[in-house]
Amino acid sequence: MGRFTGLFEPERVGIVGATDRDGSIGRALVTNLDEHYDGEIVPINPGRDTVLGYDCYPDVASAPSIDLGVVVVPPPAVLDAVRDLGEAGTRNVVVITAGFGESGSEGAKRERELRAIAEEYDIDLVGPNSLGVMSTPAGLNATFGPDIAREGSISFMSQSGAFITAVLDWANEEGISFRHVVSVGNKAVLDEVDFLRAWDEDEGTDVIVGYLEGIEDGQAFVQAAREVTSETPVVLVKSGRTDAGAQAASSHTGAIAGSEEAYRAGLDQAGVIRASTVEELFDYARGLSGLSTLESEGVAIVTNAGGPGVLTTDAVGDSSLELASFEDATIGELTDSMPEEAAVYNPIDVIGDADVDRFRTALEQALADPNVGSAIVVSAPTAVLQYEALAEMVLDVRESYETPIVTCLMGGSRVDTAEGILRDAGVPNYFDPSRAVAGLDALAQHDEITGRAADDPTAYDVDRERARSILERAADRTDNRLGVESMDLLDAYGIPTPTSEIVDDPIRARDVAEDIDADVVMKIVSPDISHKSDIGGVAVGVAVDEVEDTYEDLVARARNYQPTASILGVQIQEMVDLDAATETIVGMNRDPQFGPLLLFGLGGIFVEILEDTSIRVAPIGETEARSMVDEITAAPLLRGARGREPADIDAIVETLGRLSQLVTDFPALVELDVNPLVAGPDGVQAIDLRATVDTEEL
Amino acid sequence: MGRFTGLFEPERVGIVGATDRDGSIGRALVTNLDEHYDGEIVPINPGRDTVLGYDCYPDVASAPSIDLGVVVVPPPAVLDAVRDLGEAGTRNVVVITAGFGESGSEGAKRERELRAIAEEYDIDLVGPNSLGVMSTPAGLNATFGPDIAREGSISFMSQSGAFITAVLDWANEEGISFRHVVSVGNKAVLDEVDFLRAWDEDEGTDVIVGYLEGIEDGQAFVQAAREVTSETPVVLVKSGRTDAGAQAASSHTGAIAGSEEAYRAGLDQAGVIRASTVEELFDYARGLSGLSTLESEGVAIVTNAGGPGVLTTDAVGDSSLELASFEDATIGELTDSMPEEAAVYNPIDVIGDADVDRFRTALEQALADPNVGSAIVVSAPTAVLQYEALAEMVLDVRESYETPIVTCLMGGSRVDTAEGILRDAGVPNYFDPSRAVAGLDALAQHDEITGRAADDPTAYDVDRERARSILERAADRTDNRLGVESMDLLDAYGIPTPTSEIVDDPIRARDVAEDIDADVVMKIVSPDISHKSDIGGVAVGVAVDEVEDTYEDLVARARNYQPTASILGVQIQEMVDLDAATETIVGMNRDPQFGPLLLFGLGGIFVEILEDTSIRVAPIGETEARSMVDEITAAPLLRGARGREPADIDAIVETLGRLSQLVTDFPALVELDVNPLVAGPDGVQAIDLRATVDTEEL
Repeated sequence: MGRFTGLFEPERVGIVGATDRDGSIGRALVTNLDEHYDGEIVPINPGRDTVLGYDCYPDVASAPSIDLGVVVVPPPAVLDAVRDLGEAGTRNVVVITAGFGESGSEGAKRERELRAIAEEYDIDLVGPNSLGVMSTPAGLNATFGPDIAREGSISFMSQSGAFITAVLDWANEEGISFRHVVSVGNKAVLDEVDFLRAWDEDEGTDVIVGYLEGIEDGQAFVQAAREVTSETPVVLVKSGRTDAGAQAASSHTGAIAGSEEAYRAGLDQAGVIRASTVEELFDYARGLSGLSTLESEGVAIVTNAGGPGVLTTDAVGDSSLELASFEDATIGELTDSMPEEAAVYNPIDVIGDADVDRFRTALEQALADPNVGSAIVVSAPTAVLQYEALAEMVLDVRESYETPIVTCLMGGSRVDTAEGILRDAGVPNYFDPSRAVAGLDALAQHDEITGRAADDPTAYDVDRERARSILERAADRTDNRLGVESMDLLDAYGIPTPTSEIVDDPIRARDVAEDIDADVVMKIVSPDISHKSDIGGVAVGVAVDEVEDTYEDLVARARNYQPTASILGVQIQEMVDLDAATETIVGMNRDPQFGPLLLFGLGGIFVEILEDTSIRVAPIGETEARSMVDEITAAPLLRGARGREPADIDAIVETLGRLSQLVTDFPALVELDVNPLVAGPDGVQAIDLRATVDTEEL
Repeated sequence: MGRFTGLFEPERVGIVGATDRDGSIGRALVTNLDEHYDGEIVPINPGRDTVLGYDCYPDVASAPSIDLGVVVVPPPAVLDAVRDLGEAGTRNVVVITAGFGESGSEGAKRERELRAIAEEYDIDLVGPNSLGVMSTPAGLNATFGPDIAREGSISFMSQSGAFITAVLDWANEEGISFRHVVSVGNKAVLDEVDFLRAWDEDEGTDVIVGYLEGIEDGQAFVQAAREVTSETPVVLVKSGRTDAGAQAASSHTGAIAGSEEAYRAGLDQAGVIRASTVEELFDYARGLSGLSTLESEGVAIVTNAGGPGVLTTDAVGDSSLELASFEDATIGELTDSMPEEAAVYNPIDVIGDADVDRFRTALEQALADPNVGSAIVVSAPTAVLQYEALAEMVLDVRESYETPIVTCLMGGSRVDTAEGILRDAGVPNYFDPSRAVAGLDALAQHDEITGRAADDPTAYDVDRERARSILERAADRTDNRLGVESMDLLDAYGIPTPTSEIVDDPIRARDVAEDIDADVVMKIVSPDISHKSDIGGVAVGVAVDEVEDTYEDLVARARNYQPTASILGVQIQEMVDLDAATETIVGMNRDPQFGPLLLFGLGGIFVEILEDTSIRVAPIGETEARSMVDEITAAPLLRGARGREPADIDAIVETLGRLSQLVTDFPALVELDVNPLVAGPDGVQAIDLRATVDTEEL
């Protein structure tokens, strides 16, 4: 099973802090272990001779060597306990004790020390502030929760211990079963990335599910999860989606919440299937763990109930699946075998007087159709329909077809027995058609994710040293903002910029304009003036013989606006033909969790009023860059809608790739906007630049 | 209880077609009635002397007079049976028999005849193709379904009988209880509007819920429902939301599906709370039937489980509610009474070792806060928490506070007893926090709806006769399209248009331009050329001395484009200053169910590419017209974003109101577009018009 054998398949578990005091966590741990675990249980506590009948050792040193240590001593004693375990050669430790990073500065210090000890002894440490871990194949319940999970193929991590206890009792009743369950606690050492990797390698895990309130290292997560999800489906609830929720999460875990837009982009790029509610999380997980893969997106619906059939069709329409179109031959067979009043087009309505045999005939004829990749059996209770027999029929038909089948046998107590029959055989049954569709939808989402082509960032030929020196110049100016004077930064990374020069006298300005040999654009260059247009600091379409006067005007306006402004000069820039062009924006800002977020949109109102933008975590490959362009609502304008000449989308895609490389190469770039990047039929031109540099990072 | 006393409180029910043949619907009806109904049961069937022990009459004439007749004879015998009931003075009839409008042209003819008989005898008829009706206060189950509803205050109509049978067994288990249940069937006579009105008047109905696949008369529905929903909440699933679903619904009911956008607008204007799934429908209904009204939108969350608390906060953020901000005094009290590790800001985390007393203290302190309008108790199972005692505590606290409280005691079998205790007292408990929030959200939505001001359409002073004669001129031309030549239509309804005249020779063109005394716009006027700009049929900024030449050019281009085109002349129009103005579109098309749908948006790409439009069913009042302007994403552009001069929004609102009046006055207008309607700082101008007239309707 790869990594964490000692965590999930330990032969001897030591509980440091074990006790038989009533109501204590130390007692709950031993009780839970005692219930199913076949290995050896070793209580460690200097104050006891035995705990619940097990011999108790005074300290780790005197105990037999243990491969999993569970620590439940008071906070000040935790560090010594973990050190003792390290000294004794234990490489897997779960710290149950709370009072670390989640509780003020003293706790945070203690957590740093804990991490240092774990590093020193190479300990894979879960927690602190953890409910514990479970491993159903080993019968291991090293938690202090009230329930143990049923054995299955879902591995489950949670940043909230209470979330685990809240879910397990319900899951047991719903027939949802698990392989490993980990309460990751404060993630001082092991975090979500470690468990993703471990479970990806684990043969027994079919689906990874998780409840997370934050991700420690977004870049590492995206990279790891992308590999994992190309094979093993990962379904997550990331809570704190809303502003109020984010605030609650950050007060719960003590971590700063990253922005929801970063999470949305990062989780999507990582191939994570995101759920927003607990029921959705497990509806998806159940579908992914119990059903075979889809051969096509077409769904067949077989029902005895018109209304519920329509509702199921709506749910399919809302999902990433589609209603299957039957072949003529299928329609013919259904017409021959069904009563006249039946509907033989999908959804198949076998009508209210259908018995199980008629359901079977319709289901088999649908499954034989090559356009059908999955089927949903939807029924309302009737006098002639035996639900148990219907359930048995579905299981029987399933033997002969690979196609995933889910059921929506609607009703209450009337369905209980049939639901049990289905559940025991791994067929999820739902009351609500939309939830029955959710399981299949998860399969379709997983197919889409595994079908994504590898999309490694292109390594463009760039002048990294030149870029570095431009950034260092900003540092030398003891000023962390870059403007038009630093357009060379883009040039160094191969992003086209118009011919331009910054000059500091009017005569030189005229010379430059004469060289350009056409009307020019002139812009004041000052790190202190960021909205140049607003103060009249930009002149467009200046003829050569007006250049000198315009120079004086621009400088006068800047002085007038801010007498103390540092004026670096005036930029004389080649005019870009805007007639057949579209103004776009490419930009970046750095998220505390995910690092550089790239943004693309059309300029002006499209970004500011309509908020029509696409966002990705850098670095990105060409496919992702292209999807950034495609996914904005206004994309048809770039493709030539309304009689426009199409913009050079390849050039935009390349610019996004080069920008991705620039911001990845230089963590010192905190934010950067190219606004506008003018996209014409034959290429792009970056017209203006604003960036902020963290000179410490250079 | 108002209307339908005979339907829901009959003293004697006759079943025409009653039988004791095993497995028959006629037997199921008598059996179901026999079970709980206290009134008299009268089987009618010429072939039987008794049915299930009741004396059976050979025909309606020989039976005692009955106030509810249930008809279950074969299709060809239904008409005579209903006529006999009418002759005998029965005014309430339910036709169970299928084989009418849903099954081909013969059935449709039979349904028309059925409707005529019902009208002749003034019969309130349910069906045909109905499962029947239930009335729990009367113990009446006049359906052939397997279950009877529990008695409660939810009245429930469904266009699918199977939807009722699918729901009832589940609802009984979930503790959801009903007052009246009606399977409306084909709605030959009584439809959704009739039941809305009846249940609105019914004291015992707190909430109306429904499953509908279509609405017969959208205009009547909006008008009726608007009145009803100002008091009684109405929650509907309208299925066929998606394209595939709409197709399935129309094959199920035989009705043409109206457009989803019309339903969305109409249901919203009607104040209907729309649910998209079965669970959501009843989550909303349960909240609305069981909880008292909200005094404020602030929600307090009290939990022993951090993660589920964050999830609940997210769910509140997704809803129309908000997380309550506690007063300082509340924070102080909580700080004093809770342990140090507890979170005293909302959500209140009473932490994992909380017992019921600590939950009670926190809940009471929160409820005493004036900013708290509702509360959610969220818990995960722990060793120290008794769920039954927690449930009893919630019920006890509820005695002292008016504030609605819902619970999310998470778990499976461990929660069963507590859930039963809560359910019996009318407190819904949910496993998933998002569903617990849904019930409260429905209260908030209902508050918003009842708080809507009456918004009767303004009756503007218009020249209706002049408008009629313009429309009749189009009819005379044996041509159903109107263009710029009919701008007077707008003028007659007080919508501003620029000075313009249509001329048919170049000299006259020049004269008109001289009168306007500025550059003009010239447009070819031809009913055969709808995209004038595309063929070069529009000239902008024409100086007076170019008018004659331009006239010839425009006519030549039109002839060249289509030699047979009928050319009415050239329009000479005052130039409208577009510099400080925004182009908008106002339009209308007529929906088969809902009638005139008004559309508003900014012109060009905003409508065509970004689809940024708002839609309402006409007629509309001023508030709705204003909300049409406010709800488009680009609305800030009209309000003066990015340094623009604000547009005259009042003038746009008035134009929408006048257009609403025009299209309501003239059903002959099938579609109409004013594109552009130019909105400047001091008013609007309609620049161009296209409309289609159904001359039959004039």
